[in-house]
Amino acid sequence: MKHTLKAVAEAVGGRIIGEDAVSVCGIASIEKAAPGDLVFVEEEKNLQAAMHSNASAVIAGEFAAWTKHSKPFVITQQPKLAFAQAARFFHFDGGWPAEIHPTTIVHPSARLGANVSIEARVIVGENVEIGEGSRIGAGSVIAADVHIGMNCTIYPNVTIYSGTKLGDRVIVHAGAVLGSDGFGYVRDAKSGKYEKFPQIGRLEISDDVEIGANTTIDRGALEVTRIGRGTKIDNLVHIAHNVQIGEDVVIAAQTGISGSAVIENNAVIAGQVGIADHVRIEQGVILGAQSGVPTKKVIRGKGIVFWGTPARPIRGYLKELAVLARLAKKE
Amino acid sequence: MKHTLKAVAEAVGGRIIGEDAVSVCGIASIEKAAPGDLVFVEEEKNLQAAMHSNASAVIAGEFAAWTKHSKPFVITQQPKLAFAQAARFFHFDGGWPAEIHPTTIVHPSARLGANVSIEARVIVGENVEIGEGSRIGAGSVIAADVHIGMNCTIYPNVTIYSGTKLGDRVIVHAGAVLGSDGFGYVRDAKSGKYEKFPQIGRLEISDDVEIGANTTIDRGALEVTRIGRGTKIDNLVHIAHNVQIGEDVVIAAQTGISGSAVIENNAVIAGQVGIADHVRIEQGVILGAQSGVPTKKVIRGKGIVFWGTPARPIRGYLKELAVLARLAKKE
Amino acid sequence: MKHTLKAVAEAVGGRIIGEDAVSVCGIASIEKAAPGDLVFVEEEKNLQAAMHSNASAVIAGEFAAWTKHSKPFVITQQPKLAFAQAARFFHFDGGWPAEIHPTTIVHPSARLGANVSIEARVIVGENVEIGEGSRIGAGSVIAADVHIGMNCTIYPNVTIYSGTKLGDRVIVHAGAVLGSDGFGYVRDAKSGKYEKFPQIGRLEISDDVEIGANTTIDRGALEVTRIGRGTKIDNLVHIAHNVQIGEDVVIAAQTGISGSAVIENNAVIAGQVGIADHVRIEQGVILGAQSGVPTKKVIRGKGIVFWGTPARPIRGYLKELAVLARLAKKE
Repeated sequence: MKHTLKAVAEAVGGRIIGEDAVSVCGIASIEKAAPGDLVFVEEEKNLQAAMHSNASAVIAGEFAAWTKHSKPFVITQQPKLAFAQAARFFHFDGGWPAEIHPTTIVHPSARLGANVSIEARVIVGENVEIGEGSRIGAGSVIAADVHIGMNCTIYPNVTIYSGTKLGDRVIVHAGAVLGSDGFGYVRDAKSGKYEKFPQIGRLEISDDVEIGANTTIDRGALEVTRIGRGTKIDNLVHIAHNVQIGEDVVIAAQTGISGSAVIENNAVIAGQVGIADHVRIEQGVILGAQSGVPTKKVIRGKGIVFWGTPARPIRGYLKELAVLARLAKKE
Repeated sequence: MKHTLKAVAEAVGGRIIGEDAVSVCGIASIEKAAPGDLVFVEEEKNLQAAMHSNASAVIAGEFAAWTKHSKPFVITQQPKLAFAQAARFFHFDGGWPAEIHPTTIVHPSARLGANVSIEARVIVGENVEIGEGSRIGAGSVIAADVHIGMNCTIYPNVTIYSGTKLGDRVIVHAGAVLGSDGFGYVRDAKSGKYEKFPQIGRLEISDDVEIGANTTIDRGALEVTRIGRGTKIDNLVHIAHNVQIGEDVVIAAQTGISGSAVIENNAVIAGQVGIADHVRIEQGVILGAQSGVPTKKVIRGKGIVFWGTPARPIRGYLKELAVLARLAKKE
Repeated sequence: MKHTLKAVAEAVGGRIIGEDAVSVCGIASIEKAAPGDLVFVEEEKNLQAAMHSNASAVIAGEFAAWTKHSKPFVITQQPKLAFAQAARFFHFDGGWPAEIHPTTIVHPSARLGANVSIEARVIVGENVEIGEGSRIGAGSVIAADVHIGMNCTIYPNVTIYSGTKLGDRVIVHAGAVLGSDGFGYVRDAKSGKYEKFPQIGRLEISDDVEIGANTTIDRGALEVTRIGRGTKIDNLVHIAHNVQIGEDVVIAAQTGISGSAVIENNAVIAGQVGIADHVRIEQGVILGAQSGVPTKKVIRGKGIVFWGTPARPIRGYLKELAVLARLAKKE
């Protein structure tokens, strides 16, 4: 889809230097750009490369406003953000069919909104509700009483257990499992056998959440597991029963969050982090990769980076590493 | 399904204080309980909350026998266990159809027991055997020569490779992969290329095992990978070829167990633990989260907690952490 | 399938001691061998066991050339490699149907080579190309514009996102997800919300790569994620957008590789390793299990083992552990 640079600049809130009637039809990296593409520059050192690229226009920060321009520029305070927003103008999602494929099995009690698109071999259970404009990928299984909001994208081979609720614009990547039973057992003191504790709670996911491939999120045991608005979850993450995750939290790949942990808004959790049960990660805390938070701990401090197992403020942790290295060297 | 409290108390081996004809129809947490629900109390401090809840009856320990009761109580030595057992009286599993869905593809040589229920789009291969009362979720693929025992529950989109054997009452959550090839190669010293070592063994899973969502368990290379009776495995766990796991072992999410490791009965393995090849974890050992056991190590000591990488008794490990922190502070 | 030992010996480049007309029809471990089986011995101490086994012949190193033999031997410099190569003579892959199952949905624009075999319920999208002799397992979803080379094996319930390219002889185990969106967002400094950064690059996988069950590999953001020839990847591994992996790299289970990291040829990466973004692991480096490499680090040294987080040469790391243990003991 072609647009004038003017239209793009208006949408992303930038101002144009140069020819605003030039038409653009895609985005690209500076190295790969072809005529018609938009590129972006965040740091001044990359400005020359962008100007010499084949791109038709460049999105850049204020630093670029004073240079001599060989092609049109869109100047904005957040060029990478503007680039991401501009990308939405163009169509990249691989041609989902605007139809309900005849091989889909939809329970007669299910309610589908307008413009819902369902690929082949999807199973939609009893009383399922799918909101306007949502798309379900091939082979996905949506169990009974699931509610999916508007404009969601569920990729292929996803499994959503019964009763799970998704808000609007939720993206779920292939192979993810939502609302599975939590890992809860009671050991019989006499026989030594583990009896399954009931896992009859639900999973609720708010608007604008993205969930990575093969990630698993369990339903609550008796209560509700919750993922807050705008939270982004990478691939192969595990989130256990009763976990409460706030808004705009970022969780990188292979992190595991144990039962009843609470992660407050704006926390940033790197990859392979382990968070034990009943832990509380307070607002804006940053957990470094592979760090571990032991059971019931509270981690506090907006913008403070914690690292190691048990997780401690990174400054002190780096000092510990340095002391230890020095001692070993002396030997 | 409604039951009298008397029937429930008999089934869980408790004695009733108060009205035993009261009827109950579900279980709930104290906070969420509605009339008709049963709740449970493990610690005396929660007794008042239970009594003031909307629940119709309370399961509690002996400590509750002497209080003045505002509603009927079931007194038992293990109240949480009794609550879990009571939950079985009520039906929570989201309405599996008691049928073989017409879109299922069952090889003519497969043998299905009575009351087997198979959801849509399942594939059942040659010579597969599925025991009485077992249920297979939509989209699952059961390859040739798989044997599934009685009353098993296989959730959707599970893949079971050929020749795998499951005992009775095994639960497999969505997306799990059972019996995949192990990770074994021989490096050609001349070409430097890796040649695949044959992965032609099998996987055998005993009775009452539960396997979490997206967990993977490999078949043996030339031998058999075994999971013992009553063992519980959480989500995203990896179990490699030739591993031998005993009975009543608990393995939390994202733990990885390398080739030919042995985990003896009653071990408890927390999340994100790494166990290298040919390790032996002896009876009743407890491995703390994220701990790591290097190749060929033997970890011994019933009830002893090991932590860190390499895993060591937690007492000594905590001392090491304390010493290090003190040294760093002095700087 | 039966072969004479002579034919096998020629194929694996070994010489026979004893009767070369004996016929063999399979491989096995020494413990499990039955008449007709081939076994192998790498270490002299296992020679007696092999000779007393029920196997019909033994593959062994030069050390076995001078013993008195009770059964025929194939002598070779790399007996385990020869055993693996011999295994290829026999057929172990569980009876894939040499057909395109009638329930497969193949887009009319897709191009399938000769002898392609596709199991039930597979979905093959627009413009997909599948090379001669490749096999696709039940329930897999191959999105538009995917290219699969010759003699590939895709196990069931795999999802391949649009535009992904696989070379020849690639093996992909069940539940793997290839070409999913990378984890990239731009935070809006004003609203605090995360905007999805475009993930419109591709994933390219070269010849002879094997990918484990439930592993996830993301497409590039604007560029291409690449996996080099002969690289072997275990189960539940995560590989992020823009990662470049060289040839003959080995990556064990549950390892995570963050965005834009580079892993050079012949690196060996154990299980649960974490590699941060923009890291470079140089040729032939060995990373021990659970080690972690912080952002932008370069790890260099062919054949050197690194361990710990942050990863350091294992020698120094073990010394650090010893020093710390000693200090703690003194207390």
